[in-house]
Amino acid sequence: MRNTQVILSSRPVGVPGPEHFQLRESPVDTPGDGQVLVRVTHWSVDPAMRGWTNDVPNYSPPVPIGDPMRAFAVGDVIASRHPDYAEGEVVEGLLGWQTHALVDSSAIARKVTETDLPRSYALGILGLNGTTAYFGLLDSCAAKSGDNVVVSTAAGAVGSAVGQIAKIVGCRTVGIAGGPEKARQCIEEFGYDASIDYKDEDVSAALAQHCPDGVDCYFDNTCGPISDAVMTHLAQRARITICGTAAITEWDPIPVGPRVHRQLLVARARMQGFLIFDYQGRLHDARAALADWLRAGKIAVREHILDGPETAPGAIEMLYRGDNTGKLIIAV
Amino acid sequence: MRNTQVILSSRPVGVPGPEHFQLRESPVDTPGDGQVLVRVTHWSVDPAMRGWTNDVPNYSPPVPIGDPMRAFAVGDVIASRHPDYAEGEVVEGLLGWQTHALVDSSAIARKVTETDLPRSYALGILGLNGTTAYFGLLDSCAAKSGDNVVVSTAAGAVGSAVGQIAKIVGCRTVGIAGGPEKARQCIEEFGYDASIDYKDEDVSAALAQHCPDGVDCYFDNTCGPISDAVMTHLAQRARITICGTAAITEWDPIPVGPRVHRQLLVARARMQGFLIFDYQGRLHDARAALADWLRAGKIAVREHILDGPETAPGAIEMLYRGDNTGKLIIAV
Repeated sequence: MRNTQVILSSRPVGVPGPEHFQLRESPVDTPGDGQVLVRVTHWSVDPAMRGWTNDVPNYSPPVPIGDPMRAFAVGDVIASRHPDYAEGEVVEGLLGWQTHALVDSSAIARKVTETDLPRSYALGILGLNGTTAYFGLLDSCAAKSGDNVVVSTAAGAVGSAVGQIAKIVGCRTVGIAGGPEKARQCIEEFGYDASIDYKDEDVSAALAQHCPDGVDCYFDNTCGPISDAVMTHLAQRARITICGTAAITEWDPIPVGPRVHRQLLVARARMQGFLIFDYQGRLHDARAALADWLRAGKIAVREHILDGPETAPGAIEMLYRGDNTGKLIIAV
Repeated sequence: MRNTQVILSSRPVGVPGPEHFQLRESPVDTPGDGQVLVRVTHWSVDPAMRGWTNDVPNYSPPVPIGDPMRAFAVGDVIASRHPDYAEGEVVEGLLGWQTHALVDSSAIARKVTETDLPRSYALGILGLNGTTAYFGLLDSCAAKSGDNVVVSTAAGAVGSAVGQIAKIVGCRTVGIAGGPEKARQCIEEFGYDASIDYKDEDVSAALAQHCPDGVDCYFDNTCGPISDAVMTHLAQRARITICGTAAITEWDPIPVGPRVHRQLLVARARMQGFLIFDYQGRLHDARAALADWLRAGKIAVREHILDGPETAPGAIEMLYRGDNTGKLIIAV
């Protein structure tokens, strides 16, 4: 039994590419006391992984050179010397880009119990993406029936869930995405009431048309010109959730943009940073709701599944180019 | 009986100066049905008056050319044909820069009942300034015991109240003000734990020294470089209240500044616009608390009282130059 790992082999500045990774094979050890051996079947590719590879202050220390890339992943327990985990159970957590993860329980986020749903959902709609959408929209943005909700990266793994949850709770939804294909997905697959192709349309003019009464909730994954345009259309008491910063590649020095202060003041609006890690104790509630909506056919999921470990080194770059057509997963 | 009014005689761009006002004398009419005649004794000078004179979108329409300047004021009811108001009562409201206000009840904000305290307090610490400080700090900023609270325009009418209320509820306070005299006032009169003279000190370096654990609450009246410096020192879960924009004179086009998005995201912080008009139903609570603190000697008030109507045309300019040494009031 051999463990195939994707190793961070050099330190990138910005988005890591194929040149920063190497595949490595090694023998698989047997679990020591308290350890669990997981045969990993699906690796996640997430925007946060850029930050994990860079040597800049972040939520967590950078991945050491020579270590397997830190990543969320899901797989089967094939051996366990931990009382809480048994052979045959499915687990999800920070198992890394490797086919065999010999870990202690701290690396395991949870047992995957929705075995009637596709296993890869544990990394997306039932993982970080779906729970981020759920709490970011319902808690941080405090979206409620009748609100006009605008979502950037609206066809992405988080955005598409935000848009669909917003519809479920009775909001009107406008999705902003890049290119005609994503704009089409917004309407036809994810049920947005309107979509804006920011590569082709004047976002501010389109918002004036689609949200004549202003924007009540803005779920932002960009922090760039799209965000600036939305800020000029705030309704009174608007809530803006900052979930990601996809449009800005470099924060040192801090880039300049239009000041938001007076827009917040005049609208008595609130702009708030959101991180799902603050919701650890409540993730179960979100997963239960999302699983029910999935079973009822109320949430559509789009996945882009790459095949095999050799696709991993280019996957983060692919994600940042926007070339994926759904939640990016590597099946191994 | 003659009414002396200060008329807005031409439309300013930005801060109105003496050239935009004229004094006018006219006879005083007797009240019609539902009207009240007030002998006004004190006129307020507030930052918001700049916006009221300019022909740009704002909370309220601009003062028409030829009308007495809109202003908060306090005075004695000397005649009344309204059942709720009787001769001899003291009232406060949007009575305007005039010595005799013949108004219907909609212009009157309230009866001043704290007759044991100086009447001019109704325009400052017991008026917009004090209630803004109270709800802006305790409600919008959600300040609580142990928080590190930073205040800009810290020696001003609002800021000095924010700093003192923060101390009363158990916070540590750092005041940012311009010039050695205001920095001294912050410490000696308003009880700040530390003060920063932004005209002489590197605000960011001083904050690193005074708030080594970061800033929990920032009450901002500036929205310029001072605000930018504070944003680089946020504690986790920081709350920023945008109350005023003194550092920015022109918002069309929107000026640029460092983007706040990632700072809000990393700290999971909240930035929120605040307007006291949203707290109409709760003003009594704030006034009652403030009056008690004033009587107990827990809040110091500094007023700068100008003498006579002829001082009014230059008063708003004086306020924006920062030449006043306390809440600016005109006694008439």
